[in-house]
Amino acid sequence: MNKIVTISRQFGSGGREVGKRLADALNCAYYDQEVIVNIAANSGLSEKYIQSVLNNSVSSYYPLTYGRTLSYPNSAWENQAKVMQAQRQVILEMAEQSDCVIVGRCADHILAEYAPLNIFVCADLPARMRRCRSKAAEDEQLSDQQLKKKIKQIDKNRANYYTTFTGRAWGDPEQHHLCLNTSNIAIKSVIPALVAFCHCWFDPARP
Amino acid sequence: MNKIVTISRQFGSGGREVGKRLADALNCAYYDQEVIVNIAANSGLSEKYIQSVLNNSVSSYYPLTYGRTLSYPNSAWENQAKVMQAQRQVILEMAEQSDCVIVGRCADHILAEYAPLNIFVCADLPARMRRCRSKAAEDEQLSDQQLKKKIKQIDKNRANYYTTFTGRAWGDPEQHHLCLNTSNIAIKSVIPALVAFCHCWFDPARP
Repeated sequence: MNKIVTISRQFGSGGREVGKRLADALNCAYYDQEVIVNIAANSGLSEKYIQSVLNNSVSSYYPLTYGRTLSYPNSAWENQAKVMQAQRQVILEMAEQSDCVIVGRCADHILAEYAPLNIFVCADLPARMRRCRSKAAEDEQLSDQQLKKKIKQIDKNRANYYTTFTGRAWGDPEQHHLCLNTSNIAIKSVIPALVAFCHCWFDPARP
Repeated sequence: MNKIVTISRQFGSGGREVGKRLADALNCAYYDQEVIVNIAANSGLSEKYIQSVLNNSVSSYYPLTYGRTLSYPNSAWENQAKVMQAQRQVILEMAEQSDCVIVGRCADHILAEYAPLNIFVCADLPARMRRCRSKAAEDEQLSDQQLKKKIKQIDKNRANYYTTFTGRAWGDPEQHHLCLNTSNIAIKSVIPALVAFCHCWFDPARP
């Protein structure tokens, strides 16, 4: 069975960087946006629509694109179910292919039978704000208050999405194997420790 | 400045074992029950009374022992403050002496100026019950329901105590640097990863 690491992460905590660097260090595949691209390819839905569903902001008035045809869904729920099913299928296929690190998308729940190592990445609000600022497009002009509101809203959506999908509490240390707080540490420097943890987790002799 | 690791832990999660093994691996001092012994030596209070205060179960009717004299406190709060102050002093002295691992007792808060590495150790309830059973005295005959109740009550006391003392949420991944879930792993096997994390945390070049 392939070795799978899943990363759940607070917005702005550097979870993607943790995932990418860890995958590089483990010399395995890394999946993040690729999941969306694959769902789009398999389902015929647009990447934008899929992203909106997965951000938990689906609207029943949002137009779908099937091939080149625009249509309006009868029910937002039906399409949400369709996206979730497509996502599940894509993630299962990725896990079947090779060892990998998958960021977000409830992969810890979908791949439970693989006994993945599930990592939660978080940081305090000031650190997340700094990271968001450093990554923001040049024309983004959010005030501190607007940025805080954005971060909290995205995390609220992620928590709701995770709980709806898995029945578990997002960010609860009991629901993950390791929670890493990146507030006061360079992510690059902590990768050897995470690799050591992976070796321990995937040791065939683990009880 | 000495290198300090603090361990907060859910009851039955193996936090003490993590702390002891980590201290051995780092070749540094380990403090747990020693804090109580030292408070008793410094304050003249009995170890039993100190433990009851630190378990957040202080009673205003609990007799104090000053040297060989029994007396009844005027106020539970006064004595709680006295114990907390004595504890703070003992922990500060321990941190001043040498590198160390300290388990519990809000040491992360008391030693904030040392920039300690703060680890939270948890496990799911079945794992904690198994650990409690394996450590229980032979004559302990708790039913599963009684054991669950005991675990939850002790954790509730720890959470209340931590929040009262620090103003922060116990077990929130944002409030610790690393949260380790011991449910599905042998603690011994994870120590090299924790040592690697310590090396990264205490690297003089850390930003």
